[in-house]
Amino acid sequence: MKKSKSAYSQIMSVKSFDIEAQRMICIMNRIDAGELGLFPLDRVELKAVGSSRKIVTVVDVTDSMVKPNQLGVFKSVKEKLSLDGKSRIRVTPVPKLVSLVYIKKKLNGEELREKEIREIISDMGKNALSEIETSAFVSAVFVHGYTLDETVAMTKALAENGKEIKISKKPVVDKHCIGGTNGRTTMIVVPIVASAGCFIPKTSSRSITSAAGTADVMEVLADVSLSMNKIKSITENIGGVIAWGGALDLAPVDDEIIKIEHPFSLDPPGQVIASVMAKKASVGSRFVVIDLPVGPDVKIHTKEKAEDMARKFIAVGKHLGIKVQAVLTDGTHPCGKVFGPALEAKYVMQILEGEFFDDLAQKSCELAGILLELCGKAKKGKGYTIAKEILESGRALKKMQQIIKAQGRHYLKSSKMPKLKLGKDVLSTGSGTIDKINVRKCNTVARIAGAPADKEAGLYLYVEEGNILKKKQPLFRIFSKNKRKLKLALDYAKKNEIVALERNIIEIMP
Amino acid sequence: MKKSKSAYSQIMSVKSFDIEAQRMICIMNRIDAGELGLFPLDRVELKAVGSSRKIVTVVDVTDSMVKPNQLGVFKSVKEKLSLDGKSRIRVTPVPKLVSLVYIKKKLNGEELREKEIREIISDMGKNALSEIETSAFVSAVFVHGYTLDETVAMTKALAENGKEIKISKKPVVDKHCIGGTNGRTTMIVVPIVASAGCFIPKTSSRSITSAAGTADVMEVLADVSLSMNKIKSITENIGGVIAWGGALDLAPVDDEIIKIEHPFSLDPPGQVIASVMAKKASVGSRFVVIDLPVGPDVKIHTKEKAEDMARKFIAVGKHLGIKVQAVLTDGTHPCGKVFGPALEAKYVMQILEGEFFDDLAQKSCELAGILLELCGKAKKGKGYTIAKEILESGRALKKMQQIIKAQGRHYLKSSKMPKLKLGKDVLSTGSGTIDKINVRKCNTVARIAGAPADKEAGLYLYVEEGNILKKKQPLFRIFSKNKRKLKLALDYAKKNEIVALERNIIEIMP
Repeated sequence: MKKSKSAYSQIMSVKSFDIEAQRMICIMNRIDAGELGLFPLDRVELKAVGSSRKIVTVVDVTDSMVKPNQLGVFKSVKEKLSLDGKSRIRVTPVPKLVSLVYIKKKLNGEELREKEIREIISDMGKNALSEIETSAFVSAVFVHGYTLDETVAMTKALAENGKEIKISKKPVVDKHCIGGTNGRTTMIVVPIVASAGCFIPKTSSRSITSAAGTADVMEVLADVSLSMNKIKSITENIGGVIAWGGALDLAPVDDEIIKIEHPFSLDPPGQVIASVMAKKASVGSRFVVIDLPVGPDVKIHTKEKAEDMARKFIAVGKHLGIKVQAVLTDGTHPCGKVFGPALEAKYVMQILEGEFFDDLAQKSCELAGILLELCGKAKKGKGYTIAKEILESGRALKKMQQIIKAQGRHYLKSSKMPKLKLGKDVLSTGSGTIDKINVRKCNTVARIAGAPADKEAGLYLYVEEGNILKKKQPLFRIFSKNKRKLKLALDYAKKNEIVALERNIIEIMP
Repeated sequence: MKKSKSAYSQIMSVKSFDIEAQRMICIMNRIDAGELGLFPLDRVELKAVGSSRKIVTVVDVTDSMVKPNQLGVFKSVKEKLSLDGKSRIRVTPVPKLVSLVYIKKKLNGEELREKEIREIISDMGKNALSEIETSAFVSAVFVHGYTLDETVAMTKALAENGKEIKISKKPVVDKHCIGGTNGRTTMIVVPIVASAGCFIPKTSSRSITSAAGTADVMEVLADVSLSMNKIKSITENIGGVIAWGGALDLAPVDDEIIKIEHPFSLDPPGQVIASVMAKKASVGSRFVVIDLPVGPDVKIHTKEKAEDMARKFIAVGKHLGIKVQAVLTDGTHPCGKVFGPALEAKYVMQILEGEFFDDLAQKSCELAGILLELCGKAKKGKGYTIAKEILESGRALKKMQQIIKAQGRHYLKSSKMPKLKLGKDVLSTGSGTIDKINVRKCNTVARIAGAPADKEAGLYLYVEEGNILKKKQPLFRIFSKNKRKLKLALDYAKKNEIVALERNIIEIMP
């Protein structure tokens, strides 16, 4: 946070408020703000008188909350400066952060240099940029995009700003899927590649808009809130781990950026790539497979966009010393038949137990195979066969049992898992051939039913695309332990076409 | 604020915090947020159980500030819903505001339609958009600019969202200067045109970055915090008023936009035009002169940009039924010799009293003359002569005395004004011809000395450009009633070249 010396300051008494604020902020009377030449959202340096502690905060201006010569502070500021009722604070206006100059440069459409991006991310990491400023930066990136150099610089800056996990064994591998589909390939790929001698410290997210994220599903079987040390030791001892990445500090600034992107679903490809690769770099991955599902209902809509992202992932990896293979996958169909944490957990365990081998198992073996070839654990063209053999032999199941134990729980056979009680079937209203099952709407139904907070809530498909249906045949079952939510989910399911039948006439003119 | 019906809701108890928040916001435990499928910055509708009152707020998510099933609210929400300790609130997630779709459209570089701009401004007026969202909109406008249609639509939307002052007399005229220079032409133009039979309900701002805004200077002589009714009646009775516009609701959303623009000094020309013209429309002005100073240290740097803005001002005016004349003025020199509220107030009164006729007086008569011709109070080519005659005859002074009285004070002859006591001269360190006096740095010195909060603080120039200087000759005097600030201002003045001498050699190579 670069700033020049400011000329004038003022000493004030403290009024503290028992409030957590997400940002470092202080509240100043309009009269003091005027005297110090401060405008709302300007910054000041606060230094406790008689102490060496100091921080920079944003200023909020008020007419009534604090009196002149009084400075209002929230919990985090109070704690950082160790203030009490008698403390006095020296308040010094801080000239513009140089980050703001760089953000404006990006708004103007100019390319940022590595040190400029590093400065912006470093200031975000210190909570020194306001939401307004971060939003302007994110908007600028959305409008103008990143060059390859910028993407690499952003990746490095995000990683540098977080903590590292250093795995002492080799090879460290990883996989990542650019969201939007269902299907927990991670929970099958991890035990397969760990069985084959790879080390895979996989961190996953909870769901934001779908029925479950991998962390939500794994949590049904094991603890996922693991410390950095625990992730390191489990990976080194067992070969693999499936943890929740949200509470880790691998790339903390990334969460801030994602929060700002959320209201508009802004996710400029360069920022997505930097976000993913920074986390891979922070856990020391050297071989990474990126799964890019393509389809109208997932994040990436066209093959061209997916290819473009794939090329950028590979190029960024090359700059970071990470070997990346990106695969385009079909994101137009459901992968597996279930939506919701408990349903998906059971489904995955059934695959690992060898109860069936479906499209989810198939995709998982393909991804695992590519990863094994990439890191040299399988010869070219042999990866898939080896992966499938590890799955079918039960070695992947055994590895998953070790992982579950290391993550603090006991393995329970899928047939012994608790039965989901409250559920209701939805029947077909017509007959014909199933043309399409809408993954996005399946996720919505499961969410209305209570997923992922209610682990048992979800949706189970009885049918698949291509099936020939009779009238009143069961299409899917909705689970929820809350009757009201179950009814709401049923209402939504009836009003929205989740399973679409084939039509021959697609348009009538004029 | 358009939104569709949401499917699920939850009833919660209330925990209130004695805090003013600038936005409508509520605080929810992470568990409840998860159950309702809410992400930080999503929106909820809050309805007090047993009452018909409801509002929409943004959600902030916490782990500790409120318990599950408890909703944290700040003062404004508590008041709007008339809540007490026993109240219960129904919380319903609100789907995305349609405004967000329009903001994303603008981010994507598409032109917005009138109804789309109206929707965005209407939501801002209801505090329904978060700062993040407003910042994204402002950034999008900065990057992509406005078409003429968009500027007109924005002007109308800003005006519609504010209150109106309806002056019953004619012609209603106005002037506006696109900031950056010193010199209070307003305080000379208003009494001149009011003397000539115009009605000019002038609202001015306080200073943001300079030593004084017109409202700060006028406040030395009279009250400037006037009600809308007072502005109307003074204008109708006396012909003119000089009030502070900040507390009025002429275009309240504009203040929000300006606040967001501030950290980056973003001021896309279209937004500036809409902001100015909306306020002119709200007070019913039919004839407006726009002063566009051009120079390296003022807002508009090149003649081309000024001409472009001038054309847009005129075009927007045409759409609103306002006759606009835009004038480009020289923004490279100081206008008048003083910086700071009390110094400027006295200086203006000296001109009105006929003590001298300098470049500020000259510019004021030119602007007044154009306004008189524009509204038909002077024949083409005669405006300047009439304006100067009104000033020199003392009629403008008499009018200013009436205005000061109507604004609650008694006129004091400039020679009777209190003498500024604490001050110190700064002397030249070299000899030669003065090439340039830096207006921006003069403002900075005055601000460090305490202006505009300290009305008496400021800077008085003894010299002007072209003067031939001897060594150790007084250049300017700095005033402040605070010794420490005076010293800081002197330090700044010594380290920064405020008065530059001519140089013949401008570059030496190699």
